[in-house]
Amino acid sequence: MSSHPRFELAHMAHAELFTPDMEGSLWFFTQLLGMREVARSQGSVYLRCYEDPYHHSLKLTERDQPGLGNLGWRTTSAEALERRAAALDKAGLGKGWTSGDLGVGRTFAFESPDGHPMELVWEVEKFEAPPDQRSRILTRRSKRPLQGLPPRRLDHVNLMASDVTTQKELFEQTLGFGTRERVVDGANGGTEIGAWMSVNILGHEMAIMLDQTGSRGRLHHLAFWYGVPQHNTDAAELCREYGIQIEAGPDVHGITQGAFLYVFEPGGNRIELFGNSGILEMEPDFETVTWDLSDFDTALAIGGATLPAETYFVYGTPANPGQDKLLAPWGGA
Amino acid sequence: MSSHPRFELAHMAHAELFTPDMEGSLWFFTQLLGMREVARSQGSVYLRCYEDPYHHSLKLTERDQPGLGNLGWRTTSAEALERRAAALDKAGLGKGWTSGDLGVGRTFAFESPDGHPMELVWEVEKFEAPPDQRSRILTRRSKRPLQGLPPRRLDHVNLMASDVTTQKELFEQTLGFGTRERVVDGANGGTEIGAWMSVNILGHEMAIMLDQTGSRGRLHHLAFWYGVPQHNTDAAELCREYGIQIEAGPDVHGITQGAFLYVFEPGGNRIELFGNSGILEMEPDFETVTWDLSDFDTALAIGGATLPAETYFVYGTPANPGQDKLLAPWGGA
Amino acid sequence: MSSHPRFELAHMAHAELFTPDMEGSLWFFTQLLGMREVARSQGSVYLRCYEDPYHHSLKLTERDQPGLGNLGWRTTSAEALERRAAALDKAGLGKGWTSGDLGVGRTFAFESPDGHPMELVWEVEKFEAPPDQRSRILTRRSKRPLQGLPPRRLDHVNLMASDVTTQKELFEQTLGFGTRERVVDGANGGTEIGAWMSVNILGHEMAIMLDQTGSRGRLHHLAFWYGVPQHNTDAAELCREYGIQIEAGPDVHGITQGAFLYVFEPGGNRIELFGNSGILEMEPDFETVTWDLSDFDTALAIGGATLPAETYFVYGTPANPGQDKLLAPWGGA
Amino acid sequence: MSSHPRFELAHMAHAELFTPDMEGSLWFFTQLLGMREVARSQGSVYLRCYEDPYHHSLKLTERDQPGLGNLGWRTTSAEALERRAAALDKAGLGKGWTSGDLGVGRTFAFESPDGHPMELVWEVEKFEAPPDQRSRILTRRSKRPLQGLPPRRLDHVNLMASDVTTQKELFEQTLGFGTRERVVDGANGGTEIGAWMSVNILGHEMAIMLDQTGSRGRLHHLAFWYGVPQHNTDAAELCREYGIQIEAGPDVHGITQGAFLYVFEPGGNRIELFGNSGILEMEPDFETVTWDLSDFDTALAIGGATLPAETYFVYGTPANPGQDKLLAPWGGA
Repeated sequence: MSSHPRFELAHMAHAELFTPDMEGSLWFFTQLLGMREVARSQGSVYLRCYEDPYHHSLKLTERDQPGLGNLGWRTTSAEALERRAAALDKAGLGKGWTSGDLGVGRTFAFESPDGHPMELVWEVEKFEAPPDQRSRILTRRSKRPLQGLPPRRLDHVNLMASDVTTQKELFEQTLGFGTRERVVDGANGGTEIGAWMSVNILGHEMAIMLDQTGSRGRLHHLAFWYGVPQHNTDAAELCREYGIQIEAGPDVHGITQGAFLYVFEPGGNRIELFGNSGILEMEPDFETVTWDLSDFDTALAIGGATLPAETYFVYGTPANPGQDKLLAPWGGA
Repeated sequence: MSSHPRFELAHMAHAELFTPDMEGSLWFFTQLLGMREVARSQGSVYLRCYEDPYHHSLKLTERDQPGLGNLGWRTTSAEALERRAAALDKAGLGKGWTSGDLGVGRTFAFESPDGHPMELVWEVEKFEAPPDQRSRILTRRSKRPLQGLPPRRLDHVNLMASDVTTQKELFEQTLGFGTRERVVDGANGGTEIGAWMSVNILGHEMAIMLDQTGSRGRLHHLAFWYGVPQHNTDAAELCREYGIQIEAGPDVHGITQGAFLYVFEPGGNRIELFGNSGILEMEPDFETVTWDLSDFDTALAIGGATLPAETYFVYGTPANPGQDKLLAPWGGA
Repeated sequence: MSSHPRFELAHMAHAELFTPDMEGSLWFFTQLLGMREVARSQGSVYLRCYEDPYHHSLKLTERDQPGLGNLGWRTTSAEALERRAAALDKAGLGKGWTSGDLGVGRTFAFESPDGHPMELVWEVEKFEAPPDQRSRILTRRSKRPLQGLPPRRLDHVNLMASDVTTQKELFEQTLGFGTRERVVDGANGGTEIGAWMSVNILGHEMAIMLDQTGSRGRLHHLAFWYGVPQHNTDAAELCREYGIQIEAGPDVHGITQGAFLYVFEPGGNRIELFGNSGILEMEPDFETVTWDLSDFDTALAIGGATLPAETYFVYGTPANPGQDKLLAPWGGA
Repeated sequence: MSSHPRFELAHMAHAELFTPDMEGSLWFFTQLLGMREVARSQGSVYLRCYEDPYHHSLKLTERDQPGLGNLGWRTTSAEALERRAAALDKAGLGKGWTSGDLGVGRTFAFESPDGHPMELVWEVEKFEAPPDQRSRILTRRSKRPLQGLPPRRLDHVNLMASDVTTQKELFEQTLGFGTRERVVDGANGGTEIGAWMSVNILGHEMAIMLDQTGSRGRLHHLAFWYGVPQHNTDAAELCREYGIQIEAGPDVHGITQGAFLYVFEPGGNRIELFGNSGILEMEPDFETVTWDLSDFDTALAIGGATLPAETYFVYGTPANPGQDKLLAPWGGA
């Protein structure tokens, strides 16, 4: 366990979302976002974006309530997996080893301090495109689809937590995340309202935001990456045309400088489409940037967008009782 | 007067804005928007965008209150000018001939039914760039400046009116405007809330929106054209960085499909930066598209933008008593 | 015939392309460009872009050789149609009245001086979307498709001609086109090499370029409009991925300031995707801009693109004997 | 020296360019690219982009010939600097410790195997903006300038080498670079023609391309990052307007998926403007992607751009005798 934790996690490799409307969720992810189905098993559907490196990046599983089923972090080596598993056990968060999943080898399951289900993995199946999906662009794992407006890969996750600081410190100390930016409520003793964290040069690969309802372990959003600002405008147009509820955007957050578009997929999970790369943080000895609530307007949006207080800061999945009324029902394809 | 009025006006050629903060307004238009000063005379400053065809497109004049000083429409011929002047006189709106202005020949002054000061003109001075401003792109009247984020030309005007229908019908019948789109309040007898009009294939060159305060003859906004969606995002970023108040956007209106960004220049006038060309209406026998207030969310924005009710639908220039408090003071360059 | 011809034509309404590979051409236009099929009749397939106003904008007809089958210009009124038909008859180019086509009423057929088949039309069928294709954006005739990367409408045509000047003058004098820009070979007596013409404020709706092979009546390209620069980059990527030959672009011409991407559809016709609106020419008394061959690099591309001499200036459809070797065979979907 | 070299270098921190035309180079970097001057000393001018984290990213020094003066790599820690210095000494490439430069602490100087001057550094001065340059976007080290079209930060370097493999292996083995992509000439025994390398998730931070003239230690290009594709189009337009020679682009390389625009600054060095983030390589156990010369067209450009053989593959700085004729003289501001 001598290696520094900051070099032990590589990136977020896959996520599982629960959905109470599998047909609607599948329509959204495959028809509008153009993700390709790679497998079905035991009621779950496995999907991938065209530049995702592995077997799948998204697993959809039918449940009564939407929410995060699982989140898989890939380590930088087999040894790093063992070391981080031991550290999580020591922190009392380990849930033991599993035999993995389709395309995923042995994993170490754990829970975040706030109760989000996660796992660490080293062994993964790299995606090999069938001949008709092979791209001439050799770093691209499969051709850009002709269906919908396809994002390139899974990008990041935003988690709501009942206690931002505890959640943040575990990920810093045990898993080597760097906290690039945070928001504090200076007028109220400096309580942390949010933290944006990364294991590499991305401005964030995981964000943690205070759940103002006091709930625990909920998902704020899962994000997919376009990397091209215009694609967020295009995605907004398609969502408007096809009855997918837009919450906010396109605009650019001051925090992370990320180009955002928030929509609700038919199952009720908030999905972000990410239209640039945000700030890439090159400095190895960066200092965490602290925003105060008094700068919050620029923190939220560089342009004129407003993030609706009635949903953005309180709605998460699973939805609290009554929160489903915040969302318009999807009209169907 | 035999020619059909629809072929008699060519386009909006120039506008005059009043400003109570000449220094601030000049900073905004020349330093942030990169417009070039072409002349000063009697306390007014004449400016142009790099693709504006004539001597100037914007005249800034110091006054106690912001607002529209004048709006110049160019006819398609010298004869058309005479015919339309006669028609305006017949409609009781003519104010007589003037000797013009810098770069502008003889004009026929008139008022819109709601009291907006306007003029018709045929004789204009075409801009000839000095050698160091000549562009290698021969349809470009001058080089793209290296200062700020320069729009290419004056685009359109949006006027608030106490009575949309009267205003609209005068422009249709006397000046040949076509009404491309309108908004009606179907639940309240179909009152017209807004109309978007054009004398060519642009989706609108003039809009008229109901002044909910009941005031007359006010300016909602004057718009300048980028034609490139990304430039609206860039402009929003610069406005945020340099303390120019953003009201809404960047986003795209459903009405006109225009990519909008609304900001307040330091003098208090609302300015739109226009990031695409909007819908181009090719049909000679188009039918006016009617939006009902019940479709208003899509009409206002295809993405998730909200137009703030406390300013967008009530603030115009000159500001009503007390309305200046709606705007944050500009911090200065 | 008293009305001035410049107000008599409204825009290009439809085009017919011949293709020796109907399956390949259909794949390109419907799967990659996302155009919707609206009808089939007598071996022809009728297609439309999602913002095209009429029944169809493109008719594909199987023939041994690719090329232009027909080009339909819509007049501004029924009377204008009669007047322009008479003028064409007087010019010796009239081919008589036809009963029209699917969605197209009575037309007056004619040939350009160089032999391009054309027609004038007033009566057209406006497109009414079936309920599931209706857009919430009311100026949009149908929803933006989820298939491929759909252009919004038919934009313009570029014709090769054995004699540019004769062709140009007919369209100016008889049909009221304005010549916005032209290229001359100043070193060789000022021969006209190309002309860019319009009946409205578009920078061009028809271009004429010298056919350096001396052939007559050939098509250089037909263009479809995105209006968004990024979409040309996206289209290039999809063409690269799916084996559609790219000739040049994305880049921006100095002439017309149009954002271009040239590709060859599987039938062999050159297609341009048009990524902005180009310069919009507002002046009613514009002067034709003349480029000399010595400025030709900027005229062709503002960026670093080169237009390949072995195809761009000599290949047209129908291809001359042996020219089909200039194109790589399409690999199929 | 126990730490794995792959975690020892953080990123490229600064570069020095020689220029025979200081006035022209300064005009290009400050007026067109909007970089800010931070210091002058002993005939050198120090510049930075608005998001560069340190004192400067570019040092311009007057010399008879253009070329690379120095390249600074920052390590991930003080200890990493010591370990990598020792490793370079062992490899026979070390040139000893220096006392640094303005804003740069103690450095370890070395030469690449091909003779490029480089240094490793840990101690750097972080940039603190003066009050009037402070940005409301807190991860932004200074306001986006209003001058020119400013790139956000220094991005990567491309070096020509007489022997790609030797150069590549040193950087892999001694400094921990990963080789993401390479090009081989399969028809000629698999000689390596190029390699694209990174110490983080960027698709490349250093490229090495075979110098077909057999020269040693030359610079191909230095790249600055916009991260927004439209900005490359804007930059091309400004270069065209202001007489800066464009070599190729805007387009997107298949290799690295980087959006490129190559121009020659007035001093003769090739500069790339980088309009996206390219592929971000998340996999810790990626396999190097190998392109064969037979796929070279897609490798070079996804769109239709051609990289001119007479300059792109042979011109570097310092220029070989006679190569200065490949470039057009800059006309001056």
